[in-house]
Amino acid sequence: MATLKDESDAQRYRRFQKQIGFLIEIDKVKNVFRKTRLFHDKRYENDAEHGWHMSMMAIILSEYSNEKIDLSRVIKMALIHDLVELDAGDTYLYAENQDEKVDKERKCAQRVFGMLPDDQRDEFLNLWEEFEAKETNEAKFAGAIDRLGPVMQNYFDEGHAWKEHNVPSHKVKGVNSQIEKGSVMIWEYVQSLIEEAVREGYLRE
Amino acid sequence: MATLKDESDAQRYRRFQKQIGFLIEIDKVKNVFRKTRLFHDKRYENDAEHGWHMSMMAIILSEYSNEKIDLSRVIKMALIHDLVELDAGDTYLYAENQDEKVDKERKCAQRVFGMLPDDQRDEFLNLWEEFEAKETNEAKFAGAIDRLGPVMQNYFDEGHAWKEHNVPSHKVKGVNSQIEKGSVMIWEYVQSLIEEAVREGYLRE
Repeated sequence: MATLKDESDAQRYRRFQKQIGFLIEIDKVKNVFRKTRLFHDKRYENDAEHGWHMSMMAIILSEYSNEKIDLSRVIKMALIHDLVELDAGDTYLYAENQDEKVDKERKCAQRVFGMLPDDQRDEFLNLWEEFEAKETNEAKFAGAIDRLGPVMQNYFDEGHAWKEHNVPSHKVKGVNSQIEKGSVMIWEYVQSLIEEAVREGYLRE
Repeated sequence: MATLKDESDAQRYRRFQKQIGFLIEIDKVKNVFRKTRLFHDKRYENDAEHGWHMSMMAIILSEYSNEKIDLSRVIKMALIHDLVELDAGDTYLYAENQDEKVDKERKCAQRVFGMLPDDQRDEFLNLWEEFEAKETNEAKFAGAIDRLGPVMQNYFDEGHAWKEHNVPSHKVKGVNSQIEKGSVMIWEYVQSLIEEAVREGYLRE
């Protein structure tokens, strides 16, 4: 660029180019499709759309976190948590191979975040590991809203993905019970949706 | 829900229901399509995907803001700035009717953010007006990255939208020159893309 005058400008330019390369690469998650469909359309949702909606949920519902949270860290988790699906794709939440899934995702995290300058690579690898571990207040709340979306989508879509994958209600309750660790209020709401879904025949007992 | 015991619980529940209604309504922006296409596909980008990618740009490129910024406010602007297109749709950046566009968007902002509890409605209306006014450091930087994406998308798509709408390079330079107010570094990069696009024949003189 016009202002490249010396070595430090050249370094700065290389750093910028790495960041731009990462931003182009991650655009691919717009073609990683999930198992749930949009609220107002029968089209499946992709990971970028999910990241956006989950971030909006984080902002709007942050008051229901059980513990005090740094909202900006929750939003960052929401925005980046599915970048690890770039190479391996989306694994259904109720599938059996969840261990294999984490191995694949960890490899993908190394590759994708590895495109960034070292300081940013480390920041995002750590943030993703924190999200996965579900131990900090931010990770627990991010985990709660990550689960809220699909339950709502399924409920308002008359159980489309639950029926397609023949998931029983005890499994939906079991897998989503971790929501309570992030937000008692959201867990109560999710339980009410699950119970109503069983009554309506959207979800089998 | 199970714990509704008294009036304050009932109020809390009504507040929660408003927030859930808003979160379902805004899902519609996933079907508001823009004029630019994805980096790795010929499909047009929608507003939710753009909000996600712009938020990632804000995080990754925040060091290039001319002035000190509160990054979490920039991310919030990125996430919400296109919700005002829910009723009126996306207006092309180089179209002539930009005044009419702002009127429509302001009405939409009133309707959509008006679905939220009053405190959140006011917070988001103010944040959107701040983004539009481009006076604060956060709004200037958010404006810069809002423009960066489409120029990059056009450049890497061999000028697809520029050609389709027959836009000349002086107009692209003029409309995007506000990037400089948010980030001199990003403006230099955008200028280099525009010049290269003219050389490659992606953009007419």
